[in-house]
Amino acid sequence: MKYPIKRKSASIQTSYSNLGMTLESDIETTNNYYLNQGIAVIYKKPTPIQVVNVDYPARNKAKIVEAYYKTPSTTDFNGIYKGKYIDFDAKETKSKTSFPLKNIHPHQIEHLKNVRKHGGIAFLIINWRSYNKYFFLPIDVILEYWDQMDTSRKSIPYQTFIDRAHEIKFSFHPRLDYLKIIDEHYINNVPL
Amino acid sequence: MKYPIKRKSASIQTSYSNLGMTLESDIETTNNYYLNQGIAVIYKKPTPIQVVNVDYPARNKAKIVEAYYKTPSTTDFNGIYKGKYIDFDAKETKSKTSFPLKNIHPHQIEHLKNVRKHGGIAFLIINWRSYNKYFFLPIDVILEYWDQMDTSRKSIPYQTFIDRAHEIKFSFHPRLDYLKIIDEHYINNVPL
Repeated sequence: MKYPIKRKSASIQTSYSNLGMTLESDIETTNNYYLNQGIAVIYKKPTPIQVVNVDYPARNKAKIVEAYYKTPSTTDFNGIYKGKYIDFDAKETKSKTSFPLKNIHPHQIEHLKNVRKHGGIAFLIINWRSYNKYFFLPIDVILEYWDQMDTSRKSIPYQTFIDRAHEIKFSFHPRLDYLKIIDEHYINNVPL
Repeated sequence: MKYPIKRKSASIQTSYSNLGMTLESDIETTNNYYLNQGIAVIYKKPTPIQVVNVDYPARNKAKIVEAYYKTPSTTDFNGIYKGKYIDFDAKETKSKTSFPLKNIHPHQIEHLKNVRKHGGIAFLIINWRSYNKYFFLPIDVILEYWDQMDTSRKSIPYQTFIDRAHEIKFSFHPRLDYLKIIDEHYINNVPL
């Protein structure tokens, strides 16, 4: 009796992994959906690269032959939704117990803090791979742990995600509907 | 009598050009000023680059050995000021009579239109090099010319900039204070 159900579930999981989907591309797919539906304008910023040498093998054609990845000064995603400035980064963890704060660069925290100060909506989307769950974690919750990092734990327990983050359900259209969280918790002015 | 005045003027001009200052770096300097003073959080997006080949000459060190510049899908600058989403691009012209619309990519117009639709502040900063003048040109004015591009002129006359754009005075701290224009024409809710 259980066989068809199992197979269905397995086939969905296979199809996800076959697509080579990562958190980042799931978010980009979601952003494209938002853009095409006229819901929001949110883009991933390009990866910052320091170009050192460029060849011109043909007129008008520049070939970069030496370049290096740079550390980004901000987060990966930003844009506008219902007049609000949105800014976030995406992180993953394989842990089952806690999200290590070393996954976040200090300049990213600083940036998200700045964004919140100026009236934007700042958060992380965190994928707990062991549980196959996605959470919208507001900067306020992150800061509580970040600010006591030197004196106490260096990670945010999974239970904090259950209690104080907002789960984003994985779906197809859109894949990770994080704007729904913003509708429920920010646009309607319910304090977090 | 005129000699010292000329020399002073020449020395200022030389000092500008010696700094290798371009419109883009003037804007980045301005944005750094805004950031450090806690006025706004506005960044230039990295140039999008398609990486084709990466070498690993040493552990943990990635050297990009083949890559190409990609056409950006949006504008170069965005961020937040007084809770408002800000989005713009920077352009230059050497013309004395009109700004050619071919300097703007169609996807940039589309993007700025989208931003405005969602409640953001969308514009171009245009440097008229012949006059050494800088203008804040709202998307609305651009669209009037853009939308009739097929049937009529393919450029925006300098007189339109005088009449309907907002001049940004070049200074030192900050270099191009474009947020002043936003204060005067957007934040105080005076329609353009």
